[in-house]
Amino acid sequence: MSDMQALIKKFRVKPGDRVKLRDQDAREESIYPDKDVAKAATEVFAKDINKLQDRLYAENKRALLVVLQGTDTAGKDGTITSVFSETSPLGVAVTAFRQPSEEELSHDFLWRVHMVAPRRGMVGIFNRSQYEDVLVAKVHRLAPKDVIEQRYDQINAFEKMLTENGTVILKFMLHVSKDEQKVRLQERVDDPAKRWKFNPGDLKDREHWDEFQDAYETMLHRCSTPWAPWHVIPADKKWVRDAIVASIVKTTLEEMNPSYPEVTWKKSEIKIS
Amino acid sequence: MSDMQALIKKFRVKPGDRVKLRDQDAREESIYPDKDVAKAATEVFAKDINKLQDRLYAENKRALLVVLQGTDTAGKDGTITSVFSETSPLGVAVTAFRQPSEEELSHDFLWRVHMVAPRRGMVGIFNRSQYEDVLVAKVHRLAPKDVIEQRYDQINAFEKMLTENGTVILKFMLHVSKDEQKVRLQERVDDPAKRWKFNPGDLKDREHWDEFQDAYETMLHRCSTPWAPWHVIPADKKWVRDAIVASIVKTTLEEMNPSYPEVTWKKSEIKIS
Repeated sequence: MSDMQALIKKFRVKPGDRVKLRDQDAREESIYPDKDVAKAATEVFAKDINKLQDRLYAENKRALLVVLQGTDTAGKDGTITSVFSETSPLGVAVTAFRQPSEEELSHDFLWRVHMVAPRRGMVGIFNRSQYEDVLVAKVHRLAPKDVIEQRYDQINAFEKMLTENGTVILKFMLHVSKDEQKVRLQERVDDPAKRWKFNPGDLKDREHWDEFQDAYETMLHRCSTPWAPWHVIPADKKWVRDAIVASIVKTTLEEMNPSYPEVTWKKSEIKIS
Repeated sequence: MSDMQALIKKFRVKPGDRVKLRDQDAREESIYPDKDVAKAATEVFAKDINKLQDRLYAENKRALLVVLQGTDTAGKDGTITSVFSETSPLGVAVTAFRQPSEEELSHDFLWRVHMVAPRRGMVGIFNRSQYEDVLVAKVHRLAPKDVIEQRYDQINAFEKMLTENGTVILKFMLHVSKDEQKVRLQERVDDPAKRWKFNPGDLKDREHWDEFQDAYETMLHRCSTPWAPWHVIPADKKWVRDAIVASIVKTTLEEMNPSYPEVTWKKSEIKIS
């Protein structure tokens, strides 16, 4: 097993495992104890990701879907910006899932998700995702219990279908501690350039912290599958978070090993006048 | 008038003007005679674009739509990669318009375009666009003459509506010479890493070079409007092309001057426990 595969294994939730988020150190930094080294590593990985993405785009047969979940301030936006800092916008499509519209609510919960599944050749990034429907929907009781209960298997089946049709799926739960969230929310209130990100409503979710952590644990337990694994990423230190996610994305693309397609024409037949 | 505004004016097609592409030097490089300087300038502009895009995203009231047209090998992909090299994928959405599907063809030609118009806060980039329907559709006679004829005004009205609803539109025609296209097509045939981009069908369009240039001229004449101007960008030198487009995008975002939104809460009322 390479170092990279060992690293992935460390953060990947084995199918069937019950993760206790309380026991996972969000401040963990043993892999990247030095901030500058972590940042330099992320940059190298980002460059590799760009090269691999070019090949994925040329190959035009498969896609990569990166799903990001985490409580407010967990750093979903920041992770996307760092990990894909070197990738051409040609090859990346980010979808931010917001409160569903009336139109979306009048369909099954996977309808809007399916519509924005990445096309072949692309890296699709979900900033929030189908998992909102077993997280916020569960904690705030937006659907009956038995409906929520069915969704785990429905998501697994949906993701299995996607992978069987050429989309590789990586899911990252950005794990921040309650203390760190407090620091970051306070920063948003205090910093004029971040103030627009602060929504007093977020504090209501913070009051439900334990229920959200429970919902995350159930999600990780029920939906980390061999075909679409969850990773729990220590996210209190942004540079550690970025470097780990970037390394897993890079290694996954390397394993996919996309190749330039064979052409159907012969060089000798081409005359450009 | 600032230097930048003078530069924009140089490449912008005045409403009603008849551009003769033959008289526009695709190799023009007087503005950026030095390749390294041009590349450095593009990088600086790209960083500025990123900062301005952050503010556009935060403001969440307006959008910028960048439309790129040009013959095969004109460098639409390369321009996007260079000009938005520093922009987070969070704030940029690229749409590549391909051959319309049966579903798309069974609607009016603007239907698929409207669906992917950028949402507020975003920079939307069209890699090809609604203009394919007055270019390829005209040259290859995919629609009757009078239908094509109506489309110029229909596009103008559509774009006017978009701008009146908060989307600023910039349109760039990447102008390459027939000689340079030959060089680039041959490169695609010869270079194993570019071979996948070559499609023998492109040679058929090359045979219709003059008809395409005519169609472009009509498009520039009919659809460079005060609200959605066309720019003819000399594109034989990639570094010149990138620097000019980047400077126009940057200057336009500066003129939009997006601002962080006012918040609706008072700092003193926020208690994070």
